[in-house]
Amino acid sequence: MSAKISTIAFDADDTLWENEQFFRITQERFCELLADYTHADHLAERLLAAERRNLGGYGFGIKGFVLSMIETAIEVTDERVPAKVIKELIEAGQDMLSHPIHLLEGVEETVRALAADHEIIMVTKGDLLDQERKLAQSGLGDLFDAVEIVSAKTPPVYADIFDRHGVTPERAVMVGNSMKSDVLPPIEVGAWGIYIPHSITWTIEHAEAPEGHPRYKHLEALADLPAFVGSISR
Amino acid sequence: MSAKISTIAFDADDTLWENEQFFRITQERFCELLADYTHADHLAERLLAAERRNLGGYGFGIKGFVLSMIETAIEVTDERVPAKVIKELIEAGQDMLSHPIHLLEGVEETVRALAADHEIIMVTKGDLLDQERKLAQSGLGDLFDAVEIVSAKTPPVYADIFDRHGVTPERAVMVGNSMKSDVLPPIEVGAWGIYIPHSITWTIEHAEAPEGHPRYKHLEALADLPAFVGSISR
Repeated sequence: MSAKISTIAFDADDTLWENEQFFRITQERFCELLADYTHADHLAERLLAAERRNLGGYGFGIKGFVLSMIETAIEVTDERVPAKVIKELIEAGQDMLSHPIHLLEGVEETVRALAADHEIIMVTKGDLLDQERKLAQSGLGDLFDAVEIVSAKTPPVYADIFDRHGVTPERAVMVGNSMKSDVLPPIEVGAWGIYIPHSITWTIEHAEAPEGHPRYKHLEALADLPAFVGSISR
Repeated sequence: MSAKISTIAFDADDTLWENEQFFRITQERFCELLADYTHADHLAERLLAAERRNLGGYGFGIKGFVLSMIETAIEVTDERVPAKVIKELIEAGQDMLSHPIHLLEGVEETVRALAADHEIIMVTKGDLLDQERKLAQSGLGDLFDAVEIVSAKTPPVYADIFDRHGVTPERAVMVGNSMKSDVLPPIEVGAWGIYIPHSITWTIEHAEAPEGHPRYKHLEALADLPAFVGSISR
């Protein structure tokens, strides 16, 4: 059943570098800012509902998140939220967009080790410019043979990426912290899906693990990846 | 000096379909909405200044435009703008994101004619998801061999695109309505730059025409493109 693995595709946010924690910090600030203007409960749930509602229009990323925060702030205060609070939300988003990258543990060594004899691809969603900025700042840019910034991580999107890079899916591995976006879709099109959990993952990215699937693997740390790829690559 | 042209790259917004007019309409609405809350002059100039200031963080596209409108509304009213006005700005942005596509005259026939014996690529900037939506809605998707949604249209970006598609620049033509983004950078890396003006073009996209350059051409209409490509392709 095994084939020689030629290509390793990595998710970026919360697989290579911290991301979700900055959304959480901003969301806490959002709740604090609004506490003075509304007694509305479940602010986080109201915000999540707006994010879900707007995903089809805004897609993933910081700009859409800020717009959903503003929309929710107006909604939960019955249009009474002062402009200075909105201004703080916009500034919080600008802080996120200029926040220094923080690589996760073991990332550089692991990617470098695998890059020696594999094609290395980044597959990420979010705002185009923001993801490019983070990659540039990560210092990992030269290790990647290709960077694919996509609007959604669906099975056809992965099939197209593998096809354009001339790799048969059984020789490709996708690695990430989102079961829904990084693991299940590549498995569905015939590649390996490797799940490496992160301490915080956005609710929208949750899904059941495909336990027992022959091309699914749960690893505790990215540093375990080279040994695992070696074990399946013959 | 001529080589057989193998690849035609098209800009999308205001080359294949209307775009800038929807920004102008929304901007007029922005000015109307704020007229009741501020005597500030030069609202359009203040907005443009915010757009320029935020371009490095937000990049191109509707979401960043809406965030810049909100920021400007707060700024010009000294934080007195009511939440209901901000709400209308958010809704105006959502209208833009769901607006039906309006193809420019002659686009479908021209792209179809050239697709018969050329590789056809779309090169566009803006929000990833929004550009994908417009392409899907345009009905032209099948005519394009590749779609490149980029954060900036610089000479290295064009060089990389031509390289990845295995075409030497002298055999590639880039067509668009922005002298700054669609014409000058491809010429700089050795390709042809074809300028097809649109009645309205964003101030930030203006630049001097490279009059007299052997790989520059100003065409009045997209329908003139197949004949011109034929004339330079030997």
